[in-house]
Amino acid sequence: MLEDKNIPTTPLSEIGEFGLIDRIKQSVKIKNPSTQKGIADDAAVMDFGDKQVVVSTDMLTEGVHFNLAYTPLKHLGYKAIATNVSDICAMNATPTQVTVSIAVSDRFPVEAIDELYTGILLACEKYKVDLVGGDTTSSRSGLVISVTAIGEAKKEDLVYRDGVKEQDLVVVTGDLGGAYFGLQILERENQVFKVNPQVQPDLTPYDYIIGRQLKPEARVDIIELFKKLEVKPTAMIDISDGLASELLHLSEQSGVGFTIYEEKIPLDQQVISAGEEFDMNASIGALNGGEDYELLFTLPLSEFDKIKANPNFTTIGFANNISEGNHLIGRGNTTKVPLSSQGWDSFKRYKENLEKNKD
Amino acid sequence: MLEDKNIPTTPLSEIGEFGLIDRIKQSVKIKNPSTQKGIADDAAVMDFGDKQVVVSTDMLTEGVHFNLAYTPLKHLGYKAIATNVSDICAMNATPTQVTVSIAVSDRFPVEAIDELYTGILLACEKYKVDLVGGDTTSSRSGLVISVTAIGEAKKEDLVYRDGVKEQDLVVVTGDLGGAYFGLQILERENQVFKVNPQVQPDLTPYDYIIGRQLKPEARVDIIELFKKLEVKPTAMIDISDGLASELLHLSEQSGVGFTIYEEKIPLDQQVISAGEEFDMNASIGALNGGEDYELLFTLPLSEFDKIKANPNFTTIGFANNISEGNHLIGRGNTTKVPLSSQGWDSFKRYKENLEKNKD
Repeated sequence: MLEDKNIPTTPLSEIGEFGLIDRIKQSVKIKNPSTQKGIADDAAVMDFGDKQVVVSTDMLTEGVHFNLAYTPLKHLGYKAIATNVSDICAMNATPTQVTVSIAVSDRFPVEAIDELYTGILLACEKYKVDLVGGDTTSSRSGLVISVTAIGEAKKEDLVYRDGVKEQDLVVVTGDLGGAYFGLQILERENQVFKVNPQVQPDLTPYDYIIGRQLKPEARVDIIELFKKLEVKPTAMIDISDGLASELLHLSEQSGVGFTIYEEKIPLDQQVISAGEEFDMNASIGALNGGEDYELLFTLPLSEFDKIKANPNFTTIGFANNISEGNHLIGRGNTTKVPLSSQGWDSFKRYKENLEKNKD
Repeated sequence: MLEDKNIPTTPLSEIGEFGLIDRIKQSVKIKNPSTQKGIADDAAVMDFGDKQVVVSTDMLTEGVHFNLAYTPLKHLGYKAIATNVSDICAMNATPTQVTVSIAVSDRFPVEAIDELYTGILLACEKYKVDLVGGDTTSSRSGLVISVTAIGEAKKEDLVYRDGVKEQDLVVVTGDLGGAYFGLQILERENQVFKVNPQVQPDLTPYDYIIGRQLKPEARVDIIELFKKLEVKPTAMIDISDGLASELLHLSEQSGVGFTIYEEKIPLDQQVISAGEEFDMNASIGALNGGEDYELLFTLPLSEFDKIKANPNFTTIGFANNISEGNHLIGRGNTTKVPLSSQGWDSFKRYKENLEKNKD
């Protein structure tokens, strides 16, 4: 996309750092009354009255978290905000502000950065959060994006990772594995493209899962739904590294084990089709593939009636005594295997990429 | 330093991302009662009661903001925290928490990251801030550090950039130009080292200014002093990009101009000596060189008595009507030149570095 010669390209060094900040500042509109001061001073100022303030931060690096060969910068900007807002949701808090810092190399013209910020601001609009600050700087190579999201909640509403009780139900929102298989499709088509740039792939059969990879949504709607249903999870985490990895986090911090039923894991039809295409159990993609940004939470059995009829939620198992460990019960209740984390690990991923590129 | 074969080197991929987070988590001790939840959940939680929350963020990239040839990682970690805490101070707020995200390439062993975090935690200790979260990830090349600092203040204590009134005095803390000339010395010695690695430079005559560059301090003490002296500046900014650049920020946001007296700009003896050595007016280094992290603020004339006897403060000029513009009055009151910003611009700096490396 950056190689399209018809797109005007202004070197970043021409407008300079303050020029870039000015461009960003002009596009920002403040939405939250808690935002006292946004971009324009040494720091942003927020007034949360007697609310609790929640802060989360994430860093995305080119070649590790995203590949610009198939990731439009607008989508990337959107995703950077969505994934951080997702962390605030996982606390059962309401996202209110974000700061965005970027490091870019000289190969990115101003227009590319505008694209990135278009996506960032689109997500800010969607999630009703204010962009209140950040930093823009150059890097020797590649693009790095660091987002800090801020949210608020009443103290009694906050949900941590350490509150799971034995016999609690394990529930997930939406469906899983889509982002993982979407990535597999994109990687495959990228390889095909490298060999023959004339091939125009028809990605229509995969539109949903590719969308899950490129433009995931934070489940802010679920936080609102919890309030409406008068539900408060005992523990919650967002699924960024894969279901198995997140379950093990909850297990470790709450001191319980989990029994999960493979046949209950919600899978979209496109995930099942992609699984067949890649000759791979689709549930494994859901268990170990990350980036779905759905919410995983636990609930006392007594609360089940409040959520059972809602299509947003799927109960996939229950919490057991820690001595019984963490297990997956296979389809048809025939097998019982220990849950293990094969989730996202950027350092290991980096090494794998290196090996792959050697071939 | 990383090439010393006696230092044990554990590849990051061996301990993985969660292993690294565990190492960091174990070193962190919570100091602030407002810190409800630190590293361990999707987000950190802070309870500021009815205080205002102040947030600032900065990103440092290798080859642009620091050169590991002469920057020890411990110092780098310290500086990353100090510079962000400095932004909180510039709001007249008290720093309370930080989040730190790093992207590192595989050439950094675990021990190097430990060094970096030793510096980070040392600064957290010094400034009494809690490390409450962050992200650790791999990068394709180089080291990127992104810090978000959080602070608190009563609403009536906050100081912005837009409050300067005509006739206000312009005051700076400490002395200026040290970090700039310290960098010149380090760059020069690095060039000498490249030509002849046997040369052991005697840096003693420059110890103060090199320290200003490698290990700057945030002026948290000044924020406390303001409270003690019952002084509230009308506007304030920290000097990260150079005095001239910061004055122009205050000018633009407050709608006033400034008259600054060159002979009043506080310079250390080592800055004056280094200026002579580099055949350069030392005041120019103070005006245009950044990274001193001193505070620049304005004060009504009526408040002068409260600060005049204090060695931390130097009055360097006054605010005038915006129609008169921004000027520097040369030594001996003989010249009057318009102030112009030649401050730090990372995109321009990057381009300059590229040109330099071509030679």
